[in-house]
Amino acid sequence: MGAAHARTLATSVPGAEVVRVFDMDTERAKQVAHGVGAEAADSAEALVADVDAFVVASPDFTHADLAVAGIEAGKHVLCEKPLAVTADDARRVVDAEAAAGRRFVQVGFNRRFDPGFVDLKAAITDGSLGDVRLLHGIHRNASNSTSTDDATLVTGSMIHELDTFRWLLDGEIVAIRVESPVVDGFRDPQVATLWTDGGQMATAEVFVNAAYGYDVRVEVVGTGGSASLEPRHPVLRRVSGQGGSAIGSDFVEHFADSYRIELAAWADASLRGEVVGASAWDGYVANVVAAAGVDALRSGQKRDVVVPERPSLYA
Amino acid sequence: MGAAHARTLATSVPGAEVVRVFDMDTERAKQVAHGVGAEAADSAEALVADVDAFVVASPDFTHADLAVAGIEAGKHVLCEKPLAVTADDARRVVDAEAAAGRRFVQVGFNRRFDPGFVDLKAAITDGSLGDVRLLHGIHRNASNSTSTDDATLVTGSMIHELDTFRWLLDGEIVAIRVESPVVDGFRDPQVATLWTDGGQMATAEVFVNAAYGYDVRVEVVGTGGSASLEPRHPVLRRVSGQGGSAIGSDFVEHFADSYRIELAAWADASLRGEVVGASAWDGYVANVVAAAGVDALRSGQKRDVVVPERPSLYA
Amino acid sequence: MGAAHARTLATSVPGAEVVRVFDMDTERAKQVAHGVGAEAADSAEALVADVDAFVVASPDFTHADLAVAGIEAGKHVLCEKPLAVTADDARRVVDAEAAAGRRFVQVGFNRRFDPGFVDLKAAITDGSLGDVRLLHGIHRNASNSTSTDDATLVTGSMIHELDTFRWLLDGEIVAIRVESPVVDGFRDPQVATLWTDGGQMATAEVFVNAAYGYDVRVEVVGTGGSASLEPRHPVLRRVSGQGGSAIGSDFVEHFADSYRIELAAWADASLRGEVVGASAWDGYVANVVAAAGVDALRSGQKRDVVVPERPSLYA
Amino acid sequence: MGAAHARTLATSVPGAEVVRVFDMDTERAKQVAHGVGAEAADSAEALVADVDAFVVASPDFTHADLAVAGIEAGKHVLCEKPLAVTADDARRVVDAEAAAGRRFVQVGFNRRFDPGFVDLKAAITDGSLGDVRLLHGIHRNASNSTSTDDATLVTGSMIHELDTFRWLLDGEIVAIRVESPVVDGFRDPQVATLWTDGGQMATAEVFVNAAYGYDVRVEVVGTGGSASLEPRHPVLRRVSGQGGSAIGSDFVEHFADSYRIELAAWADASLRGEVVGASAWDGYVANVVAAAGVDALRSGQKRDVVVPERPSLYA
Repeated sequence: MGAAHARTLATSVPGAEVVRVFDMDTERAKQVAHGVGAEAADSAEALVADVDAFVVASPDFTHADLAVAGIEAGKHVLCEKPLAVTADDARRVVDAEAAAGRRFVQVGFNRRFDPGFVDLKAAITDGSLGDVRLLHGIHRNASNSTSTDDATLVTGSMIHELDTFRWLLDGEIVAIRVESPVVDGFRDPQVATLWTDGGQMATAEVFVNAAYGYDVRVEVVGTGGSASLEPRHPVLRRVSGQGGSAIGSDFVEHFADSYRIELAAWADASLRGEVVGASAWDGYVANVVAAAGVDALRSGQKRDVVVPERPSLYA
Repeated sequence: MGAAHARTLATSVPGAEVVRVFDMDTERAKQVAHGVGAEAADSAEALVADVDAFVVASPDFTHADLAVAGIEAGKHVLCEKPLAVTADDARRVVDAEAAAGRRFVQVGFNRRFDPGFVDLKAAITDGSLGDVRLLHGIHRNASNSTSTDDATLVTGSMIHELDTFRWLLDGEIVAIRVESPVVDGFRDPQVATLWTDGGQMATAEVFVNAAYGYDVRVEVVGTGGSASLEPRHPVLRRVSGQGGSAIGSDFVEHFADSYRIELAAWADASLRGEVVGASAWDGYVANVVAAAGVDALRSGQKRDVVVPERPSLYA
Repeated sequence: MGAAHARTLATSVPGAEVVRVFDMDTERAKQVAHGVGAEAADSAEALVADVDAFVVASPDFTHADLAVAGIEAGKHVLCEKPLAVTADDARRVVDAEAAAGRRFVQVGFNRRFDPGFVDLKAAITDGSLGDVRLLHGIHRNASNSTSTDDATLVTGSMIHELDTFRWLLDGEIVAIRVESPVVDGFRDPQVATLWTDGGQMATAEVFVNAAYGYDVRVEVVGTGGSASLEPRHPVLRRVSGQGGSAIGSDFVEHFADSYRIELAAWADASLRGEVVGASAWDGYVANVVAAAGVDALRSGQKRDVVVPERPSLYA
Repeated sequence: MGAAHARTLATSVPGAEVVRVFDMDTERAKQVAHGVGAEAADSAEALVADVDAFVVASPDFTHADLAVAGIEAGKHVLCEKPLAVTADDARRVVDAEAAAGRRFVQVGFNRRFDPGFVDLKAAITDGSLGDVRLLHGIHRNASNSTSTDDATLVTGSMIHELDTFRWLLDGEIVAIRVESPVVDGFRDPQVATLWTDGGQMATAEVFVNAAYGYDVRVEVVGTGGSASLEPRHPVLRRVSGQGGSAIGSDFVEHFADSYRIELAAWADASLRGEVVGASAWDGYVANVVAAAGVDALRSGQKRDVVVPERPSLYA
């Protein structure tokens, strides 16, 4: 992801210049840096010192510290989701911004920049769906590349739906349940049921071993109609008694537009000293909901989500 | 529904002749009878006596008694769903068949005869989806024409999904939860979560005030792939910046093929002294699951479904 | 086709009873007759004498004589397309009806009864497409089962588009050109360009070795919009990086609804002494246009179509 | 188009800096220049002198002269289609490159960079369609913004299909016919029939007053299958008895991806001293075919296309 972001910044985001790359694997850092005309940094600290703004795409457990380092250095940060591994860790980022009295961090919930998702939100806000009552989300990967345990399906994958639903509805998730047809071993797929403070419900399926490909869909159901995001490859092949389209397996490719637009929006906003997209607060809340989701998965119970009061910095 | 079935029998099912029509509303009975070249019967009892086989499409609370009357008279019966209002009532039909030592009753779960649903089942049984893990059902009506209280969404509408899921998976539903974003008043839409004895989960949305039209979809998700039933009108119109297809609001029209095929299969099987499609047992089990669903809706709890042992007559 | 029609009449068209079956192959006739509870007739003449109405699904060169025999015997006839092999032969049928002073013959242009085509016509007649300017037709078979020479693509396959376009537009084809990318040998696919008396143009592709399946599509383009008939199987399978639907290869299965509705409409109209659907005149005109099409194919030139004045019997 | 390209270069193409903008309308030039951090040039000649490479998006009649000016100055040029108004004019560009002994000009046939078109070409080159026999193109605009006479539908709009077909098939168009249902006045829509040196045929509809929106589709038909490019908006709305997607009316928005990728590829290749995409030769040949198309439209006759020998510079 880091290499992909570096390439996108270097090749598709004017105004951005990639000057430093850091990776614990020094050779890897040099290789990526070379490919984008940058230099490898000796340490994350050195990188933070040498740049105007930076992207965090390192292992999840390092996100919060690096975001805080950016805030303390007064540098704009685009931090890949999740903002932290735990809600407490994410809260440290929010607190650091509060202490700085200013926002620096954008969390990489890229769907907020995806043209399809933007249009889906427009279908809600233009009123043609009436009052929204239900959301249904599907999130499937061809194979599990990243989830080491089944709680990671919530904190690493479903966290996209958690943020997407909050953003689509302009609301908060107040309760969550996560269940699975598999009762022993690695629980996959998982089905979440969610409730919002706007009186809506939502379902979200996450399945990281769906075999056939990468597939993300959302349907919004209102009293006036329904809108579905159903990405489809524009080329239809009819061969051997089947008519159909390719389904890719690579989420970076699937969401390439959104990453490019996200990075450009981040670079542009950073130059103006602003933050767009998901804030540290949004990242923190997603972690709070995900933590309740993991608790729900482990206990088999519905869990209320207690979201603390929103600081005025994020009003 | 009764008038529609009479017309279909008269105009599209060779081998079937509609000879008697009964309705509490005598004028209505005469009118329908006249339209299909039949006579109005003086009473349901008289009708049962005068025909070789009959269709029950009267109010739900009369279904079980009429089915039992058919069994006792040794007449084949196609009984509209639900088989009864309560599981106990439905059990009386099963017991009557057990007492007769023979099956006479087909329950009108028409989707089992719908070409699309038949193909969806084939996608499961031909193995290309691998092991099925999840089902997702959508069942929307443009406006609520029949449900007087919100429990009826379960017993009258969702009962279709309950039977469909059992039939698709060749399995039993062992637990159910039914929830709704609406907490006071008429709970619509409702979202059910279901568990099967085959280790699968399912979600089912029922929404009887969906405004935009009648919409029934099912997705089956397995370890090897997914299959969705997504009926779409074959004519695509592109007008005024929109490209789309008509969505009807009439379920009889939507499922017209299935009703015709169902009635023909019933007439054909009846002539051979056999029963096809959903049996009285299937109707009874659907009532048992629906009753658990109503209990789940009212209590807000997950309810186990206790299905009694299947009598050998239905093996 | 004859066996399929006999089965459909026997199993799906109430009011119709199949009593006689004739085929030059006596064994075949007995077999089909047995399957539908009928008797094999000794000759076509005997069959005509013994029935109230009959379907002609014999080899094309016999159609006109059998239709005339029906007219002379005062029997209703559903004659499979084409009405005749040559326009002159088809004219004999028209003249026979003129002599009888009454219409008996319906030509089996089944698409006029296909629900999708009926809706496509509605999209024209309801005015939402504005003034129609263009039609585009696609007509593909998986493999060539019937065309012995390439002129047969026009007279046997494209003749469906010729009738469909006349019917959709309520107009006449006044010129035709038929060309092919293959210049030597069997010319397939073929592309026709057509002009109507309403100032419209049309293209029609016929391809009888399209390999992948049976595929019939039509797009109507007007000043106000476009409507396409694009039949699609309602079950979408997502497997192995592909999402798609089955495409059948059997036109009888593809158009099964239309055949059933056509036969029912024919039986019903025949009982009332009426003719619905495509008349002998429509069949004759299709032959006239097809003959011009064959001439166009052979000469490589655009050919005017000279349609004689419509007799008052067909006004 | 020029303003859009300037914006895309400035905001989405790293490595490119927009330094000069020229327009006959000085105020317009200043405005666009200001928006991208550039200066307005005093004349086209001054602009050519001051830049490393430039984009030509001025009126069509100026294209050839500006392209030649670029070649003579040794500057890379991205020239919007068409390369020239007449084939003779386009030939001057080819001759200038021949005289320079080097290629500098890319013609803006943007579809060659559109992801959908690239995949459509892949469906041909990967062999799954067998031998290609036919192409069908649709090219519709909501309203005619640019065509002052009906020949412009060929030289300005259909020229995209002419280049697309050559590129998809890696072949040459050897004959063309262009006809229209409208015989007097402004002939729109127009239907072209094309023949290639590879023994294929193609049809192309151009309709610049299609009212409903901008719509570009291509189907490739081979002996092994068919592939269609059918762009569809990923959000499906179901409202008021209709389920459908938005169709835009703006070709710049529709093909925004292709323009961005095209400009990036051009900037990248220019830095390396190379030319990618459609060459001046491709632009010239498109003009030659279009000229034959205009002649065909005016005469109502099929016209052979005589393409001169390809200079070795374009081998």
